[in-house]
Amino acid sequence: MNDINRPDVLAEVNAAFDIYEQALVTNDVAMLDTLFFDSPHTLRYGATENLYGYDAIRAFRAARPGKGLARTVVARVVTTYGDSFAVANIEFRRDNEPRVGRQSQTWIRTQDGWRVVSAHVSWMGA
Amino acid sequence: MNDINRPDVLAEVNAAFDIYEQALVTNDVAMLDTLFFDSPHTLRYGATENLYGYDAIRAFRAARPGKGLARTVVARVVTTYGDSFAVANIEFRRDNEPRVGRQSQTWIRTQDGWRVVSAHVSWMGA
Repeated sequence: MNDINRPDVLAEVNAAFDIYEQALVTNDVAMLDTLFFDSPHTLRYGATENLYGYDAIRAFRAARPGKGLARTVVARVVTTYGDSFAVANIEFRRDNEPRVGRQSQTWIRTQDGWRVVSAHVSWMGA
Repeated sequence: MNDINRPDVLAEVNAAFDIYEQALVTNDVAMLDTLFFDSPHTLRYGATENLYGYDAIRAFRAARPGKGLARTVVARVVTTYGDSFAVANIEFRRDNEPRVGRQSQTWIRTQDGWRVVSAHVSWMGA
């Protein structure tokens, strides 16, 4: 794997990630749905739920209250492998939450653009 | 992305994942070190630590007590994309721990075999 963080690929994924983050904190459900890969293989482990398949993720987003989603990203590492795969990892803080949050995503390039195929969000703690 | 779960690729990654799981529960640190990609880009968010870079992960493993690592995998989904990229997600249980654990890994094919480039482990809960 000699093709890590090719600048053009990294710029694409960073742009996609920025769109995702903005959609998350504004609860732009349509954009969040767009950025997850529409596939039964897509999954998302949230802080309090394990969701298997695009439909389960979409149903969760549709039902989730839109308040309290604001957060501050305190660490961010996006790494691309070749021209079609990437991982994006952040640490984040929310008001009134002492724990550090972590979000990991795996992105793939599809014919429609970059999409998340796997995500994991959690609070760090014993 | 029309090349999801090609049987030969899926078999390879499942085999690598099995080796990883066995190494984890037996605290085979040398094998765990082998299966993580030796790169400053590799990262691992654990239940109680955020580790950036292969060296940090290796130091954590070397210092971790080898007891209490046994676990039972209660859900497992490995998905491959193309011939060089995969995600592996499990839910697991540990004795004396009421919460469900989740482990997400992103694997890439390297010249030395399949390696983990990103991992996230957490307990599910509010």
